[in-house]
Amino acid sequence: MTMQTAPRVLESYLCGQWQAGSKDGKPLLNAATGETVALIDATGLDFAAALQYGRERGGPALRAMTLHQRALMLKEIGLKLMEMKEDFYVENLWTGATRAEGWVDIEGGIGTLLTLASKARRELPNARVIPDGPVEALSKDASFSGQHILSPLQGVAVHINAFNFPIWGMLEKIAPTLIAGMPALVKPASQTAYLTELMVRRIIAMGVLPEGALQLVSGSAGDMLDHVTCQDVVTFTGSAETGRMLKTAPAITGNSVRFTMEADSLNASVLGPDAGPGTEEFDLFVREVMREMTSKAGQKCTAIRRAIVPGPHVDAVIAALKDRLAGVVTGDPAVEGTRMGPLASLDQREEVRDRIRDLARDAEIVLGDPGEVRVASGDAEKGAFVNPVLLLANDPGADCAAHDVEAFGPVVTLMPYEGVDQAVALTHRGKGSLVASVFTDSREVAEEMVLGMAPMHGRVLIGNRRSAKSSTGHGSPLAPLIHGGPGRAGGGEELGGMRAVKHYMQRTAVQGAPHLLSAVTGIWSEGAGTRADRHPFRKSVEELEIGDQIVTEARQVTEEDVEHFARFTGDTFYAHMDAEAARANPFFDDRVAHGYLIASFAAGLFVDPDPGPVLANYGVDNLRFLTPVYFGDSLRVRLTCKEINPREGADHAEVRWDCRVTNQSDEVVAQYDVLTMVAKHWP
Amino acid sequence: MTMQTAPRVLESYLCGQWQAGSKDGKPLLNAATGETVALIDATGLDFAAALQYGRERGGPALRAMTLHQRALMLKEIGLKLMEMKEDFYVENLWTGATRAEGWVDIEGGIGTLLTLASKARRELPNARVIPDGPVEALSKDASFSGQHILSPLQGVAVHINAFNFPIWGMLEKIAPTLIAGMPALVKPASQTAYLTELMVRRIIAMGVLPEGALQLVSGSAGDMLDHVTCQDVVTFTGSAETGRMLKTAPAITGNSVRFTMEADSLNASVLGPDAGPGTEEFDLFVREVMREMTSKAGQKCTAIRRAIVPGPHVDAVIAALKDRLAGVVTGDPAVEGTRMGPLASLDQREEVRDRIRDLARDAEIVLGDPGEVRVASGDAEKGAFVNPVLLLANDPGADCAAHDVEAFGPVVTLMPYEGVDQAVALTHRGKGSLVASVFTDSREVAEEMVLGMAPMHGRVLIGNRRSAKSSTGHGSPLAPLIHGGPGRAGGGEELGGMRAVKHYMQRTAVQGAPHLLSAVTGIWSEGAGTRADRHPFRKSVEELEIGDQIVTEARQVTEEDVEHFARFTGDTFYAHMDAEAARANPFFDDRVAHGYLIASFAAGLFVDPDPGPVLANYGVDNLRFLTPVYFGDSLRVRLTCKEINPREGADHAEVRWDCRVTNQSDEVVAQYDVLTMVAKHWP
Repeated sequence: MTMQTAPRVLESYLCGQWQAGSKDGKPLLNAATGETVALIDATGLDFAAALQYGRERGGPALRAMTLHQRALMLKEIGLKLMEMKEDFYVENLWTGATRAEGWVDIEGGIGTLLTLASKARRELPNARVIPDGPVEALSKDASFSGQHILSPLQGVAVHINAFNFPIWGMLEKIAPTLIAGMPALVKPASQTAYLTELMVRRIIAMGVLPEGALQLVSGSAGDMLDHVTCQDVVTFTGSAETGRMLKTAPAITGNSVRFTMEADSLNASVLGPDAGPGTEEFDLFVREVMREMTSKAGQKCTAIRRAIVPGPHVDAVIAALKDRLAGVVTGDPAVEGTRMGPLASLDQREEVRDRIRDLARDAEIVLGDPGEVRVASGDAEKGAFVNPVLLLANDPGADCAAHDVEAFGPVVTLMPYEGVDQAVALTHRGKGSLVASVFTDSREVAEEMVLGMAPMHGRVLIGNRRSAKSSTGHGSPLAPLIHGGPGRAGGGEELGGMRAVKHYMQRTAVQGAPHLLSAVTGIWSEGAGTRADRHPFRKSVEELEIGDQIVTEARQVTEEDVEHFARFTGDTFYAHMDAEAARANPFFDDRVAHGYLIASFAAGLFVDPDPGPVLANYGVDNLRFLTPVYFGDSLRVRLTCKEINPREGADHAEVRWDCRVTNQSDEVVAQYDVLTMVAKHWP
Repeated sequence: MTMQTAPRVLESYLCGQWQAGSKDGKPLLNAATGETVALIDATGLDFAAALQYGRERGGPALRAMTLHQRALMLKEIGLKLMEMKEDFYVENLWTGATRAEGWVDIEGGIGTLLTLASKARRELPNARVIPDGPVEALSKDASFSGQHILSPLQGVAVHINAFNFPIWGMLEKIAPTLIAGMPALVKPASQTAYLTELMVRRIIAMGVLPEGALQLVSGSAGDMLDHVTCQDVVTFTGSAETGRMLKTAPAITGNSVRFTMEADSLNASVLGPDAGPGTEEFDLFVREVMREMTSKAGQKCTAIRRAIVPGPHVDAVIAALKDRLAGVVTGDPAVEGTRMGPLASLDQREEVRDRIRDLARDAEIVLGDPGEVRVASGDAEKGAFVNPVLLLANDPGADCAAHDVEAFGPVVTLMPYEGVDQAVALTHRGKGSLVASVFTDSREVAEEMVLGMAPMHGRVLIGNRRSAKSSTGHGSPLAPLIHGGPGRAGGGEELGGMRAVKHYMQRTAVQGAPHLLSAVTGIWSEGAGTRADRHPFRKSVEELEIGDQIVTEARQVTEEDVEHFARFTGDTFYAHMDAEAARANPFFDDRVAHGYLIASFAAGLFVDPDPGPVLANYGVDNLRFLTPVYFGDSLRVRLTCKEINPREGADHAEVRWDCRVTNQSDEVVAQYDVLTMVAKHWP
């Protein structure tokens, strides 16, 4: 373990420069020992200039890149950060977190960034705008259509973060921001800002991000929120009270600034009625409650605050929890064997003790003494230690403090319930939470509980024996799932895979003649122009354009074809083989050709067989058989290049073709997208 | 034309009863004649009780229905309203709107409701919750997965509407609300509330909606917003100032109540640099500016307020507009031949005159005299008439009043630009708008202008000759496209097809073991349980369950099969036929089987041929060929029932099957969804 001799003076990175505040810094203390580890101040810094710098330098530079280029940039940053992770683990100990808890913040944070970067390249186009939803035909003659696009907001995303996850809290927000093409300005909570500052220093030093894409305020953000405009975004993670204050700041309400809030909530965990003592789910529930109480000393916005238990099992749960909690060694996280560290600061300790007093008005303390501190290491006075406290609210009515008071520490209130309806109602009394969990092995209980809780929760976890090993647990937000919740939880949404990226983009409905619409979206649609100079399969991506088209000759489908195909493939489904049965079917007038025969004949009509730039057909999307094909019908295919998506760093593009098969009466028989890989150059 | 002898006393419909306020009603005047047509008051009504009634009566009744059942209910209401449309046209005249303008409000409103009801049945499942996005695998062994669901919020949607579209404004909001499964409480603006009240009376009288699903306040909403909770939604259409006040109401910010605002904005229309006098786009632009000025006397939140014109064409535009506007007959909309009616009230006239004075500080009036009233019919004094006023701001800098001041009447400010960048910058000076338009026949101009304007606009219309006949125009929000915009426009989103429904639902990430997850979502996913008792094609919807599965025998794919398929279909693509060319391809090691051959053989393996409850294969979704199939490979199919979607009022369900084709090494060769129609009963 390294310990600095003089505290580090934290700086802000604004307008392309590392800058110190004009005052002596406020000391930040090691949570376990009380030693000063850093000094923080941002007095006198020009935040209006910083926002403008982000808008004028960072924004245009990011928007000049495509979504995949930005995602690759983040991948590079993430991989480099992972290589230097040990440096972050050193300072992590100062926050009061053990190494295991630091893993969630450090590697969990970097992993979240890498996951989002990877999902972006899989799920988003390699373009500057994202089409949102299909083209909407707005006229019968295909002369007027609409489509939504998402384009990056042209402001700065100001991220105001909480002290408990100084790294994850930053990375989970800047990853989607930067992928979207928007610059970020991060303002970590002071208590643990040294860790955020260290990582931002490392990121800036890499020289991977364009100038202005990432800025940092170490210290108070002063008048920054007076300068936000409708193109900026403000996110806030922290207490509901502070969030409310920021949300109603005049510039935010006056300019309709997007404000995303993720506030601590009174998350509940429910022991299913089927999960009595002796079941695996009972043990899993007890372990989860224990883990959520003690992990980061309960300083997680997702931690379980209310444990809702079938009345008859309350005593068994208390006994099991007492047993489990007895083994939790509290102390300096830097010392081997420590299971639970201190709170982040002495102020936090006072706050938690006050809140326990509030809770104890309506509940009985069944484990722990908030006044007493028992530690195996660290300084019991100067360290911000609180031992676990378990309360029992036997009558958890709507007014019960447990539904309203949050002790942001290792504190849980147990409450009994009778019947699933009451359990659901108790979770609702938290008035909106980030997450709830239910431990059950019953499909009925899972269905009833989850659907009952869903409207009041952003995330619901079902715990049971089958997922016990792989479950990431009640308290962990995951990159692919949304993080946020209604009501007390702030009403916001973070993460959720590519949903997160879209929070930093404006959705715009574009309408017009299809050829002009396609000039904007880069996607061909019905009614836009076409070109039929050469077979489009002869064109590499260099030559191919959307609208390139081939209309094939017609091919008749005969009874022999259908019989032959049936015998060859084994698909002798009655609608193809048995005239009487086919006629009895509500959708057919007679025997019909196989759908797969239609698609196969279509390919036979449209492919160009010789070696060429088209490398492979890797799939088909949205195939619909719209009109039955009867014997004697004659099919013709129109294949049109719809979308060209070059793969960054590869020699090919993904090319999507609109494929329309019509019959002799020009009725559309089948419509689908054919997906191919096409070489960028040929030969 | 009917004219009542005594003014109608408007009532509120709350808690299942039509109720009058306790005071004498405030008179509402015919906008053209000044006669009193109705009296309005809601003093003393119990709004807290009304909200609670909606939550306790309307909500549960709506949530007991499926999405399709609710959509069919709206369809019935819409068709019945259309039959009685003439009754609404009568009172429409009182608002100052002509019959043509009334069409937008009345038939446009009913049409929006019908469109959304129809889209809901096409695009949403016939279920109580909507899956949102795919199942996310959260473990490698398929023991822990996640999926997002959308479930109806359990509160009431309070819709506070503007005076200019008393019918459309209500219907475009209650349609998505009711489809989502949430009750609505509508509070129209007083000036034209008689028309909303008439329609609500008709809807309630139909007896189609469950009790509590729709409530109405005729008059001031008093303390209603003090009683909203995090399960309620508040939407507001009207002025930015009022919106801001409501948005910061303590119960709204304190409970994180969803608040959607759609405010008037300073919408711009741009004449493209290519669209000089003599082009069709020039004429279309002039016609559109004229139409937006005069339609509803400019009382539309989407109306063009700023006309941005290439410097050299300013004079030509002024001349053409003068010419067009000269033909606009202003008067009583009840009189034949009237093209433009009055504003909604005398107060509005004073307001508009004041705002014109503000605009004239930085611009010159080039047409019209706000002090003078010229009418062909109606009462020039008691009617709220204003004739069109055109201003010219030669130096439209950032401080120019035209970028900040909205005259909610027939008033437009022209401004010159040089180059597309400046035109885009001028549109941005409106600080966020509902809509902008650009008139151009150039793909380059369309691309540059639209992408430039997009981040500041909710909707962008491209006007040109090709779409001239079918275009719905700058000012018309459409059911499939979002309506709303950033910044001054309020930062909200309405409409946008099924996006609108989701505004009234909570998105929740659900995670757990797949069999428990599928109990919640009703969708089978990898790792959930399966049943293989009989061939699932032998089961009607009565018997079929998700997880019903067939695993087929294996079938080898030989060189002969591929050669035969190539000859039969004509698909002789080189990767199947030419070993050397296939090996040169970066994705293949040798000749490969056709993708369509794999899908065809798969069908041959999984279908059960005899007549049975499976009626048709109507499509395939998300087909991906994941591993090349070489000669000699052996394929096996696993087909699993994934989703069952019964069609309301029909004898079949849409059944989605997970189809996975593997080779002899258990590698997945192809994966897709097979879509079938299955009879509800068999035989």
